[in-house]
Amino acid sequence: MSINSFGHLLRLSTWGESHGPAIGCMIDGCPPGIEIDEAAIQQYLDLRRPGTGKNVSPRQEPDQIKILSGVYEGKTTGTAIGMMIENVDARSKDYPADAPYRPGHADYGYDEKYGFRDPRGGGRASARETAMRVAGGAVARLIIPEVEIEARVLAIGGEQDETKWESLLDSLRTEGDSVGALVECVARGVPAGWGAPVYAKLDAMLASAMMSIPAVKGVEIGEGMAAAALKGSENADPMRAGADAPHFEANHAGGISGGISTGQDIVVRVAFKPTSSIRKPVHSIRKDGSEADVVTKGRHDPCVGIRGAPVTEAMMALVLADQYLLHRAQCG
Amino acid sequence: MSINSFGHLLRLSTWGESHGPAIGCMIDGCPPGIEIDEAAIQQYLDLRRPGTGKNVSPRQEPDQIKILSGVYEGKTTGTAIGMMIENVDARSKDYPADAPYRPGHADYGYDEKYGFRDPRGGGRASARETAMRVAGGAVARLIIPEVEIEARVLAIGGEQDETKWESLLDSLRTEGDSVGALVECVARGVPAGWGAPVYAKLDAMLASAMMSIPAVKGVEIGEGMAAAALKGSENADPMRAGADAPHFEANHAGGISGGISTGQDIVVRVAFKPTSSIRKPVHSIRKDGSEADVVTKGRHDPCVGIRGAPVTEAMMALVLADQYLLHRAQCG
Amino acid sequence: MSINSFGHLLRLSTWGESHGPAIGCMIDGCPPGIEIDEAAIQQYLDLRRPGTGKNVSPRQEPDQIKILSGVYEGKTTGTAIGMMIENVDARSKDYPADAPYRPGHADYGYDEKYGFRDPRGGGRASARETAMRVAGGAVARLIIPEVEIEARVLAIGGEQDETKWESLLDSLRTEGDSVGALVECVARGVPAGWGAPVYAKLDAMLASAMMSIPAVKGVEIGEGMAAAALKGSENADPMRAGADAPHFEANHAGGISGGISTGQDIVVRVAFKPTSSIRKPVHSIRKDGSEADVVTKGRHDPCVGIRGAPVTEAMMALVLADQYLLHRAQCG
Amino acid sequence: MSINSFGHLLRLSTWGESHGPAIGCMIDGCPPGIEIDEAAIQQYLDLRRPGTGKNVSPRQEPDQIKILSGVYEGKTTGTAIGMMIENVDARSKDYPADAPYRPGHADYGYDEKYGFRDPRGGGRASARETAMRVAGGAVARLIIPEVEIEARVLAIGGEQDETKWESLLDSLRTEGDSVGALVECVARGVPAGWGAPVYAKLDAMLASAMMSIPAVKGVEIGEGMAAAALKGSENADPMRAGADAPHFEANHAGGISGGISTGQDIVVRVAFKPTSSIRKPVHSIRKDGSEADVVTKGRHDPCVGIRGAPVTEAMMALVLADQYLLHRAQCG
Repeated sequence: MSINSFGHLLRLSTWGESHGPAIGCMIDGCPPGIEIDEAAIQQYLDLRRPGTGKNVSPRQEPDQIKILSGVYEGKTTGTAIGMMIENVDARSKDYPADAPYRPGHADYGYDEKYGFRDPRGGGRASARETAMRVAGGAVARLIIPEVEIEARVLAIGGEQDETKWESLLDSLRTEGDSVGALVECVARGVPAGWGAPVYAKLDAMLASAMMSIPAVKGVEIGEGMAAAALKGSENADPMRAGADAPHFEANHAGGISGGISTGQDIVVRVAFKPTSSIRKPVHSIRKDGSEADVVTKGRHDPCVGIRGAPVTEAMMALVLADQYLLHRAQCG
Repeated sequence: MSINSFGHLLRLSTWGESHGPAIGCMIDGCPPGIEIDEAAIQQYLDLRRPGTGKNVSPRQEPDQIKILSGVYEGKTTGTAIGMMIENVDARSKDYPADAPYRPGHADYGYDEKYGFRDPRGGGRASARETAMRVAGGAVARLIIPEVEIEARVLAIGGEQDETKWESLLDSLRTEGDSVGALVECVARGVPAGWGAPVYAKLDAMLASAMMSIPAVKGVEIGEGMAAAALKGSENADPMRAGADAPHFEANHAGGISGGISTGQDIVVRVAFKPTSSIRKPVHSIRKDGSEADVVTKGRHDPCVGIRGAPVTEAMMALVLADQYLLHRAQCG
Repeated sequence: MSINSFGHLLRLSTWGESHGPAIGCMIDGCPPGIEIDEAAIQQYLDLRRPGTGKNVSPRQEPDQIKILSGVYEGKTTGTAIGMMIENVDARSKDYPADAPYRPGHADYGYDEKYGFRDPRGGGRASARETAMRVAGGAVARLIIPEVEIEARVLAIGGEQDETKWESLLDSLRTEGDSVGALVECVARGVPAGWGAPVYAKLDAMLASAMMSIPAVKGVEIGEGMAAAALKGSENADPMRAGADAPHFEANHAGGISGGISTGQDIVVRVAFKPTSSIRKPVHSIRKDGSEADVVTKGRHDPCVGIRGAPVTEAMMALVLADQYLLHRAQCG
Repeated sequence: MSINSFGHLLRLSTWGESHGPAIGCMIDGCPPGIEIDEAAIQQYLDLRRPGTGKNVSPRQEPDQIKILSGVYEGKTTGTAIGMMIENVDARSKDYPADAPYRPGHADYGYDEKYGFRDPRGGGRASARETAMRVAGGAVARLIIPEVEIEARVLAIGGEQDETKWESLLDSLRTEGDSVGALVECVARGVPAGWGAPVYAKLDAMLASAMMSIPAVKGVEIGEGMAAAALKGSENADPMRAGADAPHFEANHAGGISGGISTGQDIVVRVAFKPTSSIRKPVHSIRKDGSEADVVTKGRHDPCVGIRGAPVTEAMMALVLADQYLLHRAQCG
């Protein structure tokens, strides 16, 4: 029921917990004959990896990907691609079983849903799962090599001036606080015609993809929320004759109209909330109902949005490759 | 492949074009024994219906729903519920086949995808399809009667003062322009525990649901895009002991943490772009590449967000009922 | 959850009961630009239609198909194709609500599942639903015009000599009994390479498709059940060099090896059980547990397999067109 | 698209090739709180394991299962259960890349589909994949502990007398030939009401499940193919009043009527074709079209049906647990 899977024809299924022996995934539906090796995937994992600087979690994880199936003599075979990363630096002792619920995390809802929870680093709800999204996205990119996907942090804590981010993060670290971030992900080279008019709209799939990333609370296409304040005449993307394709005089739509790509850049913006795990005390309760303050001492990113940017790229790649296959299926 | 279907266990499939003989839907997976009749559905359709005032399309459609299957002696049988609305006031002559692409609509992408298009009112891409979402949502509400769902327009064209909307819309109508709207949809009474930690996150499904509504360009949960500018200490939803359930001291999360409901109100905001069909000329091209200005004379809403509000309620109901069934399947 | 849908990329969803106002379907995923009209579908419905002779149910249903969406100027548009047949000759008085369960029908299980049942002709469980499979199959054939699909009755009540069937059925009608039938469905012109190695095996999909037809109790591919008694040397399909494609010296495999088509004829055999509704008394019970003999007086086919043959063709067409689209998606 | 996945709410996804480093699976949708450990799974794998006698492949594989996720302190968490078996005794040198297609295997169709093939033991098409079905089935059994599932070989090469099987297999081994087998799988304790009336029929899912097992060419429910030769009066399952549930005077239907379980034993029979890999020469061709005789020297089971029996149990368990969850979702 897609609890742990994403996509239709190109389907990523992931497993593994933050503090279990390993995390892994399986990619189903990849076309055959695509050249691939572990290095092609590792380069993207290295961008998301923790332990690489003071502004990301100090957890030391080499995140070394192993391809276990679906590749033969350097090419995809068309069958399931199984991949795995062994967890190296899990420290379960940071997470006592009788800990109060961490507000902002899945802890309380998880316990209400399943009757208990895996207290080790959020278990399945940990952002560690996103390493496998990045691995899946790396495969997806190879399916649509003509598409270029790039995400960047637009603002940290509302501050758009990059030169001020370093000191902002330093002071937050000192305070024991965290901060949100705004990330923009752009795909160039998507031809007109991908997507569908109703429930398989390209933007609907992107919205689901992005909102499934931990800590994301808002998704915008093109003008996004700002479109609500515009007039029709201000929001129009006028068309003129072009050489090979129409020339658009604007891209308020973010490259998608009526659920279908227009050939313009696909522009998606995503809001990451601040990391919920902070050293400042937050009111909470335990499973037995008793009250307690939560002060998080585990290793966490002060701004998850920074490491979230490569994850938005991966989700963009997965959606686009899936839509490409869907389009090829129906329209040849 | 979900091109025209939505949902997992409760599944809405819709068919029909704006100017065809009828539109219809099928609802699969509805539990048996639920009391239902056409009036229970009609009340919601009447809220979305066109032709009811000067600020909505003057197209006269009674939108009279007929239940054709799945109901026996006033109760759902557990099998497919087929429903249909006959189109009455379709005026295909408003849509010449050699018309230039209407910027902001699916026209161009549609043509690039399928090789041709149905020029009659946008064909399948018309917002007329949303009548069937409203019908489906009405059924979904009956599955989760303990949940109360309500949407309202928060702002029109950025203006939050309701008393100014009338004159704003009057002047736009005179200008031949249109305007966007911000809609908030809230669900009360959702218990903690609905949703899932990874790809079946409650918020991911809501994002897909809302972004699949025509003209929607942004989706927010709780603080939404604003969360990107907050500190962790500002964004926390502290918990204290409560009577039957925990007492939350805030709801920045919009009722969903880690993809799972917390028992608080589910709060979703949606940005509707301004109607793309305006009487002001917009640059465009024809299929043969020749340039032309588009001046839309068809019957259109100056602000689609107004009639969009009931559609957000319907999609909220469909997602919540689906998640309820998924939760019951896995957790009993 | 596919309760009332079939297929992956080409997806048939059906609704409607035997004695409701209408039955209908929606076909999702059909490629655009395919020439189609109601006559192209009606020809297949006419082969399945009741009331056409003494060996099929005397119910008078013209089974006139109406296309309600998805077709514009005689071609498919790539969006949902909605179709409907109005029920004309429903006689609900044949089915009193306090009737005992009809053994061999869904009645008892249905009541145990849903808590009640629609006693009018089996409701949703009626074979009347198969009219919509035939309509869907007619669309599917147009997607793969190079494939020729033909089903025929091989035996009635174990009797393979066609000349004896008429008198066999006459005597059964006199006795008030019914009889089973063996149907073979062959598809010619399927290229090598459709299907998949594991769960999307072509034969697995065919098995599901055929077993979902009412009254079917067994499905065989190629040698089928007889393969269990053969030696490997007897069951081999040796290959020799051919002109355009390999020449196979036998087709024990029925055109499918390892779940993938070989380019040979696809051969499926299906066993239809005898109609459960007979005039001979059968022990049964009522919902309240009281015992009663069932003597069916409704209008029924003495041998459902006869009218089942066109339904096997339809399911074959739906599976093959779906696999064709899946193959095109993954392998271009 | 289910190429490598099976099931709806309980979903098994498998990866890995016969001669790759490992095979693995992921089980999605398992309810939380079920007691489980590796031993509970290993016991079923040991029944399917090769290298255990002269009538099964001599390949030495300990088939030691490792649970990598989804289980915490001996209980399922409700998230993805990842499992893996390392391949130990792969001998790729048995499979030269320029080998002719092995008739009866996926080789030729695979090459036509994907453009090339993995010659190492059939790659993904190898029956080695079924080890993961057995692991998945072991989990499924724990979800429905009230259901008892048992498969047995009914006949080998058409011979039903068990005492003659040993000498039959000895002589086949000497000849270098193989033989088919008939397997019956029975599930006891399934309550009435699982399944659905149309495309999610319990029997349709069982048919798909069984036909997806390598070498299976026929599937029967209850009377199966023999039902085609019976009269309605002979095939009836008369009902009488019983203590807690109705008493059925027969079970021709194999426990399923109208797609829904009746509370009787679910009875499925499956025909396994003889192993295609034999030492007797079979005509074939190479990829370049040149002719060659195939004489298989790899390690193979003379009768795959023997090791297939536990696989039918696993598929039965997966289907029943999935249907149980579907039933609970819709009907509570």
